[in-house]
Amino acid sequence: MRVAADLARAEVARALRGLGVPDADALGTAEVLIEAELDGVGSHGLARMPQYVQQLRTGALNARPAFRWEALRPGVATLYADHALGPVAALAATDAAVARARECGVGAVAVRGSGHVGPLSAYVIRAALSGAVALAFANTPPAMAAWGAASPVLGTNPIAIAAPGMPHPIVVDSSLTVAARGKILSAAKTGAPIPAGWAVDAHGRPTTDAKAALNGALLPAGDAKGYALSVLVEILAGVLAGDVLSAELPMPWVDPDKTSAPGFLLVAFAVDAFGDGAAFARRAAALRETIVATGGRVPGDRRWASRADRAAQGIEVGDALAGELERLDIRLAPPAAADRLPG
Amino acid sequence: MRVAADLARAEVARALRGLGVPDADALGTAEVLIEAELDGVGSHGLARMPQYVQQLRTGALNARPAFRWEALRPGVATLYADHALGPVAALAATDAAVARARECGVGAVAVRGSGHVGPLSAYVIRAALSGAVALAFANTPPAMAAWGAASPVLGTNPIAIAAPGMPHPIVVDSSLTVAARGKILSAAKTGAPIPAGWAVDAHGRPTTDAKAALNGALLPAGDAKGYALSVLVEILAGVLAGDVLSAELPMPWVDPDKTSAPGFLLVAFAVDAFGDGAAFARRAAALRETIVATGGRVPGDRRWASRADRAAQGIEVGDALAGELERLDIRLAPPAAADRLPG
Repeated sequence: MRVAADLARAEVARALRGLGVPDADALGTAEVLIEAELDGVGSHGLARMPQYVQQLRTGALNARPAFRWEALRPGVATLYADHALGPVAALAATDAAVARARECGVGAVAVRGSGHVGPLSAYVIRAALSGAVALAFANTPPAMAAWGAASPVLGTNPIAIAAPGMPHPIVVDSSLTVAARGKILSAAKTGAPIPAGWAVDAHGRPTTDAKAALNGALLPAGDAKGYALSVLVEILAGVLAGDVLSAELPMPWVDPDKTSAPGFLLVAFAVDAFGDGAAFARRAAALRETIVATGGRVPGDRRWASRADRAAQGIEVGDALAGELERLDIRLAPPAAADRLPG
Repeated sequence: MRVAADLARAEVARALRGLGVPDADALGTAEVLIEAELDGVGSHGLARMPQYVQQLRTGALNARPAFRWEALRPGVATLYADHALGPVAALAATDAAVARARECGVGAVAVRGSGHVGPLSAYVIRAALSGAVALAFANTPPAMAAWGAASPVLGTNPIAIAAPGMPHPIVVDSSLTVAARGKILSAAKTGAPIPAGWAVDAHGRPTTDAKAALNGALLPAGDAKGYALSVLVEILAGVLAGDVLSAELPMPWVDPDKTSAPGFLLVAFAVDAFGDGAAFARRAAALRETIVATGGRVPGDRRWASRADRAAQGIEVGDALAGELERLDIRLAPPAAADRLPG
């Protein structure tokens, strides 16, 4: 069904408040999830709510976390997030990194001990809209095998950037596996095959069977290069920021009551710390123009088009998910036929 | 021929000094080039010398540059490199970024107006050996088309990281095209075909003809993901750090007298700014062990093995390159047969 984004956002926030989440945190989380829906990235949108709700109910996530900030140097901070909802911790980290970048020219903030942060794009875009170039890194439960091996030890390990620009920031948000795990999970539910080249089975053999893929490993984008870049992300998000490796993270879709606290790092750069801020804006515009002039696609532009469309026409929510959400008292359908009575 | 690394390094430094490069800069550049040879990355080693020499002779590169540093915030600096040899500027930027990271926890240094910096690995490894995690980004002359287009506007745009660790740093240094441009240049010289999947011709059609590929575009590793990541690098190295786009850079192998001054960014993170430095070392060791335990390859380990081998057995220099270097008075062969006389 089609649902107005405002309604969905308000319902998600209401449900979170009902579980004890403070107002601002409930709204922040709802914004991140609905932003993913507007961007057409449903795997990081409303589909996360059943898990968040269950984890808040069991205490795997903490509705009212006591944040502890450790700032050992002026450009860096580490947020010990006390099992906060991932978006709550990541939004706070983003704002702190931007503030540190204003002071030091560059700021880096690590998050430890929060839940899954959702789409990295939400955080780098937020930083870009406040004028900073931002990089984000996160590790995830094991998905990818090391190059030359078969059993998964690295996550899908996304990397993201956003650069301030007109009419919109340029945005890259890319996992380093060929396919997102969400697509394999969906196929496994329905029994549909997956395309060749996405995954191998537990013996390292290519497979198009989604269940075999879940027991095996996802393949890196760009072969050995994607693997190497997933190690790059693991070093930053896991070893440096999160103090936790992908290989140590439980899989929440296997054991949803277990806390999975991946690492997250946001690095913000103040564009006017490197010279004239107006020069940055000119170059960013020139990059966009150069790509467009050759007929190429600017990263992020499909996202902005999708946002405009769905903001006007509503977000699309599948019946199964809508039913699941309704059982959690998240009501996306109009309450009754009263609205549709002739005037 | 096989050449002792020490001899090659000394000869390169001697040649640079002969062109007016100060002693420390000549040695620094020689070290970077021979390190690439030891790593088995000949495309970034001695093969660069003929170009460096020509550019120093014509004034496209400046043997005695007047560096201007601009430090607008405590964590950031921009080096206006006055047409310095790339390695001279990049080494200075690396040391400055590490120093800023010691103060601020994270440090970012941009280079503008230097020549080609050579292998990014040299700089991130240098930072890692001094205890910092380092990321490096560079843009390059156009090589890759934007996704959906045919004419090249983005460089091979490498990205690199090194993380301190035992017995060696973990090192990733990866361009974002399927193949390095050096390989296409070599094939074009000999007329050999290139593998399918490396490049398209000027009309965007797949090609195995190296010359057609040079007139066309290299393909990104991992398709649209590699393209998106090359834009990520372009934002950091080109728009933010270098104030120059890949598309504006002349191709030095087409017009070697023209200055090509790509952008370079080094970001260093002090590991003890994010918490206990010993925890970082433990996690880095655990990442290595986890990968090795599954039979996988740790990024960088082939490099360290190659260094040990070639340090013992010498670096391999092709006859054509050795001849070219000899005409530049870089003498890699033993001077005479005297050494081989019976004692």
